[in-house]
Amino acid sequence: MISERLKKQIGFMLELDKLKNIYRQTYVLNEDRKENDAEHSWHLAVLAFTLAEYANGPVDVLRTIKMVLLHDVVEIDAGDTYLYDEVGTISKAEREEKAAQRIFGLLPDDQREEFYGLWREFEDKISNEAKFAGILDRMQPLLLNYSKGGISWKEHGIHSSQVKQRNSGFSGTSEELDELIQAVINDAVKTGLLISD
Amino acid sequence: MISERLKKQIGFMLELDKLKNIYRQTYVLNEDRKENDAEHSWHLAVLAFTLAEYANGPVDVLRTIKMVLLHDVVEIDAGDTYLYDEVGTISKAEREEKAAQRIFGLLPDDQREEFYGLWREFEDKISNEAKFAGILDRMQPLLLNYSKGGISWKEHGIHSSQVKQRNSGFSGTSEELDELIQAVINDAVKTGLLISD
Repeated sequence: MISERLKKQIGFMLELDKLKNIYRQTYVLNEDRKENDAEHSWHLAVLAFTLAEYANGPVDVLRTIKMVLLHDVVEIDAGDTYLYDEVGTISKAEREEKAAQRIFGLLPDDQREEFYGLWREFEDKISNEAKFAGILDRMQPLLLNYSKGGISWKEHGIHSSQVKQRNSGFSGTSEELDELIQAVINDAVKTGLLISD
Repeated sequence: MISERLKKQIGFMLELDKLKNIYRQTYVLNEDRKENDAEHSWHLAVLAFTLAEYANGPVDVLRTIKMVLLHDVVEIDAGDTYLYDEVGTISKAEREEKAAQRIFGLLPDDQREEFYGLWREFEDKISNEAKFAGILDRMQPLLLNYSKGGISWKEHGIHSSQVKQRNSGFSGTSEELDELIQAVINDAVKTGLLISD
């Protein structure tokens, strides 16, 4: 007999498959297509343990990884809001909260609470883990986009001040990664990948 | 100044982007396309912490997650060998070993050793973590394929004995997941998704 608990967990896992169909504005490097949320989350999780040494404060790597693996599942219902979409950003919090209730609600109660808590923690950006996860979530698309000739910035007419502003919220999280982000932005401006303003 | 160490880690991260272009034989549920290794690895990592309670022996969840996140990166060079491809399986170990040397070799020495070790551990299937990661790696495509009407089995003319054989190597790893796998295979045979033999 398969327990009700396991059935709920498998139902959650099958529902999460939809994250493979939520496309972002970032492109993958070696195909002419956009990246989806499942791929993005995998990439962040690898970064989380590869770069954990650069977090200023102590971070629980396992919690950070769980957070990045789950941080976008709300987009199954709420869709991806592009980082530079100022109108979409207004209703984002409400849409995502509702999605979190439904999707984590598929799980047994204890895991619903734990996973919802991890998602909320990521959004709130207060803990060391959430801040570190947050800087990775900014850095990964920046690096991909930079490596692919600034393709998404060009498509959306993004200026350097917008990129700087969106990447500025994590000061104190990691000096090394902050420095890397600044260096990439500066080089993108210098080489014309990003419009200066 | 960006350190040589960080440059190597970022180089590794950008190389790993290629995993998003390695397609498997399993389909995603909600689009007419096959799943890639990055999506598959993300899905396994979520399963690893959602289902950890079902492992018979004690498992270090963080190590299990790192293992599943990295287990397929060798396919960037070696390609995906379908589980039921008996010819491809013969040269698989050699091709993958070479790939592991090159890809993990992009990292600083300490991480090259650690990540290579995790990959080797997954392949060797001796530790509790590797066995648990292994059963998830079998179960995830089984559940997707079953949920999508047995599409890959039909495409490749796979019989139930082949599925049973490939899913038999993990007895003792998790009673509950073993039981789930058996129930899914039996139901797939009963409902004609899988050819009985």
